[in-house]
Amino acid sequence: MNPPKTDARRHHDPEVRGFASDNYAGAHPEVLAALALANGGHQIAYGEDEYTDNLQRIVRSHFGAGAEAFPVFNGTGANVVALQAVTDRWGAVICAESAHINVDEGGAPERMGGLKLLTVPTPDGKLTPELIDRQAYGWDDEHRAMPQVVSIAQNTELGTVYTPDEIRAICDHAHGHGMKVHLDGARIANAAASLNVPMRTFTNAVGVDILSLGGTKNGALFGEAVVVINQDAVSHMKHLRKLSMQLASKMRFVSVQLEALLAKDLWLRNARHANEMAQRLAEGVRAVHGVEILYPVQANAVFARLPHDVSERLQKHYRFYFWNEAAGDVRWMCAFDTTEDDVDGFVAALKEEMAR
Amino acid sequence: MNPPKTDARRHHDPEVRGFASDNYAGAHPEVLAALALANGGHQIAYGEDEYTDNLQRIVRSHFGAGAEAFPVFNGTGANVVALQAVTDRWGAVICAESAHINVDEGGAPERMGGLKLLTVPTPDGKLTPELIDRQAYGWDDEHRAMPQVVSIAQNTELGTVYTPDEIRAICDHAHGHGMKVHLDGARIANAAASLNVPMRTFTNAVGVDILSLGGTKNGALFGEAVVVINQDAVSHMKHLRKLSMQLASKMRFVSVQLEALLAKDLWLRNARHANEMAQRLAEGVRAVHGVEILYPVQANAVFARLPHDVSERLQKHYRFYFWNEAAGDVRWMCAFDTTEDDVDGFVAALKEEMAR
Amino acid sequence: MNPPKTDARRHHDPEVRGFASDNYAGAHPEVLAALALANGGHQIAYGEDEYTDNLQRIVRSHFGAGAEAFPVFNGTGANVVALQAVTDRWGAVICAESAHINVDEGGAPERMGGLKLLTVPTPDGKLTPELIDRQAYGWDDEHRAMPQVVSIAQNTELGTVYTPDEIRAICDHAHGHGMKVHLDGARIANAAASLNVPMRTFTNAVGVDILSLGGTKNGALFGEAVVVINQDAVSHMKHLRKLSMQLASKMRFVSVQLEALLAKDLWLRNARHANEMAQRLAEGVRAVHGVEILYPVQANAVFARLPHDVSERLQKHYRFYFWNEAAGDVRWMCAFDTTEDDVDGFVAALKEEMAR
Amino acid sequence: MNPPKTDARRHHDPEVRGFASDNYAGAHPEVLAALALANGGHQIAYGEDEYTDNLQRIVRSHFGAGAEAFPVFNGTGANVVALQAVTDRWGAVICAESAHINVDEGGAPERMGGLKLLTVPTPDGKLTPELIDRQAYGWDDEHRAMPQVVSIAQNTELGTVYTPDEIRAICDHAHGHGMKVHLDGARIANAAASLNVPMRTFTNAVGVDILSLGGTKNGALFGEAVVVINQDAVSHMKHLRKLSMQLASKMRFVSVQLEALLAKDLWLRNARHANEMAQRLAEGVRAVHGVEILYPVQANAVFARLPHDVSERLQKHYRFYFWNEAAGDVRWMCAFDTTEDDVDGFVAALKEEMAR
Repeated sequence: MNPPKTDARRHHDPEVRGFASDNYAGAHPEVLAALALANGGHQIAYGEDEYTDNLQRIVRSHFGAGAEAFPVFNGTGANVVALQAVTDRWGAVICAESAHINVDEGGAPERMGGLKLLTVPTPDGKLTPELIDRQAYGWDDEHRAMPQVVSIAQNTELGTVYTPDEIRAICDHAHGHGMKVHLDGARIANAAASLNVPMRTFTNAVGVDILSLGGTKNGALFGEAVVVINQDAVSHMKHLRKLSMQLASKMRFVSVQLEALLAKDLWLRNARHANEMAQRLAEGVRAVHGVEILYPVQANAVFARLPHDVSERLQKHYRFYFWNEAAGDVRWMCAFDTTEDDVDGFVAALKEEMAR
Repeated sequence: MNPPKTDARRHHDPEVRGFASDNYAGAHPEVLAALALANGGHQIAYGEDEYTDNLQRIVRSHFGAGAEAFPVFNGTGANVVALQAVTDRWGAVICAESAHINVDEGGAPERMGGLKLLTVPTPDGKLTPELIDRQAYGWDDEHRAMPQVVSIAQNTELGTVYTPDEIRAICDHAHGHGMKVHLDGARIANAAASLNVPMRTFTNAVGVDILSLGGTKNGALFGEAVVVINQDAVSHMKHLRKLSMQLASKMRFVSVQLEALLAKDLWLRNARHANEMAQRLAEGVRAVHGVEILYPVQANAVFARLPHDVSERLQKHYRFYFWNEAAGDVRWMCAFDTTEDDVDGFVAALKEEMAR
Repeated sequence: MNPPKTDARRHHDPEVRGFASDNYAGAHPEVLAALALANGGHQIAYGEDEYTDNLQRIVRSHFGAGAEAFPVFNGTGANVVALQAVTDRWGAVICAESAHINVDEGGAPERMGGLKLLTVPTPDGKLTPELIDRQAYGWDDEHRAMPQVVSIAQNTELGTVYTPDEIRAICDHAHGHGMKVHLDGARIANAAASLNVPMRTFTNAVGVDILSLGGTKNGALFGEAVVVINQDAVSHMKHLRKLSMQLASKMRFVSVQLEALLAKDLWLRNARHANEMAQRLAEGVRAVHGVEILYPVQANAVFARLPHDVSERLQKHYRFYFWNEAAGDVRWMCAFDTTEDDVDGFVAALKEEMAR
Repeated sequence: MNPPKTDARRHHDPEVRGFASDNYAGAHPEVLAALALANGGHQIAYGEDEYTDNLQRIVRSHFGAGAEAFPVFNGTGANVVALQAVTDRWGAVICAESAHINVDEGGAPERMGGLKLLTVPTPDGKLTPELIDRQAYGWDDEHRAMPQVVSIAQNTELGTVYTPDEIRAICDHAHGHGMKVHLDGARIANAAASLNVPMRTFTNAVGVDILSLGGTKNGALFGEAVVVINQDAVSHMKHLRKLSMQLASKMRFVSVQLEALLAKDLWLRNARHANEMAQRLAEGVRAVHGVEILYPVQANAVFARLPHDVSERLQKHYRFYFWNEAAGDVRWMCAFDTTEDDVDGFVAALKEEMAR
């Protein structure tokens, strides 16, 4: 038998999965199939194609008749485009200290967007009107970057989920101060699955002005969208996306992935499954003496504290990250493709390592 | 027979092609197939996957043992990352006035990269040492952004191709002044096909320090790479890519596309075909009285001057762009999927419209 | 005799003057006297002092009841603040290729303001509606930084002066395209003196939206102001000035200098004198065989072409700059403190060197 | 009697002083006198004048033979230039949450410098190696802006002063991690006076790499300098200063002010006096029942907590700022021109208002 040709060789084992990140997963087969459908022939580049046009209809079905989607490449791109859209040159962004935009985007908001982040420590990744007020002041003070937008993540970096009422309270509070609200929805599908409500229930219905709609962690190869809900809050989004290096030439291939997820219920199936696996994992972990679960498990993440050496031994077999290495905190993520066997095997291994 | 389900509906006619842009084409089927191979299972995100690792080997086979690829999303991203990599905060970029980075990137180099472009008018999109010297001065003058890199495109925005010797002369000249050389290779495959030499012959072999390697126009869905040839010229490329919002989480899906193109000869087949179609088109056009071809047709672009109303009538059937509307200049692009029938049909239509 | 105390030692000869730059001159004695008047006691910092308040009245007397001045430190600061004020994040600036903002500000507009400059070659440093049109297009094209402001300098870098009608035509043209007009008035006093009209005649009276009002070259130690004429065109100027690092804490000392210049006629006396010296110089030079004057001498600059070695010998006694060293072009600037003897001596030396 | 001439009118009462800010004070008479000495004749612009040259000698006498001063306009400018100088495009700055660069510079570090600030809460405005470690990690993690410099202020925003040993510990710690140390010395003279040591004792002698040397709060009209101590840590400072819009054309007038302060002991006399007035004020306040002094009074600032209405009544007669209005915290600053009578009168007024 001949060896496989270089360009046909599979370089990895498609049966191996871990708990490191929902970004470690590949794409859902239905998403891949959609790419093939969108292929062939010529379509206008840069977003005037039929797939992007159709995506607008789908996005409006989720986020209301006034919504408009601007497909982009990745989450950092979505966030930086969205935040620039609702700030002036002198604007600042109020967010949780633990927010992805603050801790995990390499300074892109500051360096590329010129944005000052006004951060607030939170117990569980969630802002409240009271917490926002620690930074919401000084609009007339030129010595202070002006708070113009509150950015929340749903679900949060810590796997917690806001109720619609909590987001409404934040929006009302922000709007009362003349600020806009941005929702980082890199995992918005998981939040909707967790709350068992449509995405609109905690976005346009409660006052969110603009959001980053995640596709990648939900089963796409890549691709997110900035969704503008409050059109009065923005202008020239296309220019902003372009100058932010987030304009895809063959945009049909971004849009059709989002269509594959959002047109019917694939987004929800994927998210529900990932959440269920996290619940199964949490239940399994709770039964292991000596392992503490750190935050409410409301989406597809489980944060836990356990002995450092146990984590290190486990990491030889399952990939996952320390969240706070000094404290022994780790993060375990479930994805749309995590299986019950994956979870059960991991819990068993954890149990065994804890017992050594 | 039931109507197709929404998410399975093909929104476009895969048999329609035009001459507007090589970005209007879809992806080559072998690229799509590669995505499927890379799918399934978990792979480390953000570039530590097997496909990105393998891409390094492939890129080194093209650009030398010292080369390193940094996959990114799009051409503007590749250019802005690469140019930041070889400039200090006070650096400037010498380029042709017609360069894509100057006229077609929405100000991203300035706004995102903080880069000053020092432009030079050229007859055909190509710089020379003499033309470079119009901007290459004043390194000690703090009142002037410091020329630190010369950026050329191969092929150029005008479809012209540098010979290896021409690029060598530019590199020698730039290096003699302490400047680096960046090559915007959005269509580097077309240039190699045109010259009938390996890509290395006009890049690492003649002194290019860093390049933007195009995948999208060559048959990928999306995806380019910054290729660093001169490692001494850069540092912390990963940080730069991340903060420039060009880091793909599921990077395997960028890398495997580039692998599909570059591992064997798909890149060349695609480029050769597009170039041949452009030659066929140029030959056909030359036979039409009253249509002037503007630049040497050396890659996959044909620039022509013809009566404005003729163009407008043609555009009802074939998409293409005016390049200089006042002058009646148009651009016709061929892609990897342009057929002989497409070309012949277009030439026939042109002939007919010119005769009206 | 005791040696001079260190901090009281004069390090330079106050009787030596050259023709290098109006920035080589010191401050007018009346400006120094004004500083002493403003000294003593406490005044609110950051612009809420009595001197800045009074400056507003003075500026309104020059530029109309709607004008507002924002004192800043230097010309680059004034220009970058003003241009940011009238552009969005996606905006670009149309200017002459020879404009100070393009060639002499170290890339500050791009690096600090994120501004793309769309430059146009001009014969004499002056834009016209026709020249503007070479860059005024593509407002809907996201691939192009959007032309939002035309920036002209009065007088220009080449010492030429627009007539009020010429500026009116530019403003009408720019406004017709939805663009604003910025006037870089680093030497606005020289232009007014040259035209023998109030500054308003070629600014607010003809449609200029915002200007950089120069103090330094007019006899201040330092200090300029952004003057907003069209209040609808801007917002939050104070924030913009602060984040641009141009907010003086003890602003009274900027404002009182501008007051000293502008409250009565010191600005005009200084400018007239500098212009007259330039005329005297031009007349003297015209009588020297072999020296060509390059542009109309309309303000305080004389550009000339003469043998390179003559310039070099002259520079041993009189400081001045080459403007284009290859061509043998030089620039001779007169200042408020240039004397008739300075000019006559220089012309005599020139004559002598030319005769060698 | 004739009314005073406009340009000769004093708009303020030079006998009124408050406790709002050392920026509310004017300039020391010896500084004004120095301006007159530097005036007259021509001097090369942009820093090649005799006064700037002489300043280098003076600065080296304070900060060692390797030090170099780059005069700039203001404190924000000094800080943003200095921090850019010791960071790459991907760099971040560790600083106290209460740092001036974080809370009082309008987002200039982020917007103009592209800098991410990694902040740490502190009890008294002072960082320690332990506090630094809360942000000093992740140098290899591209998802995190790279900590490249620790920025401390001496004295701090809260009026506290580091001992030389404390700064040495910070420098050793930072250098051990490959980070540089920037010292914001807007009030460095007050710190030196407080510690009764030369400035070198807590800067170059203990490892500080670069500092912002304050002139304005010490008695200048305006003017600071970036002082580079570790030349290996920076390059092309002049370019950086220029593009940051901090290059004074008539630089002699910045340099001679710094000379007036630093050549002999005016810097120290001014600082000592301000500190003594703050001590006198603190002593007086301590005797007033119900007023709590919040931080150690080590320089020229007194922070206190008192009933809100008392502050408001006092503010009718003496200007000062709330620091934390909700908590009733205020800041009282003494300047080089604060008199004993000013302090005693204020304490008496405070006593009276507290007794109401």
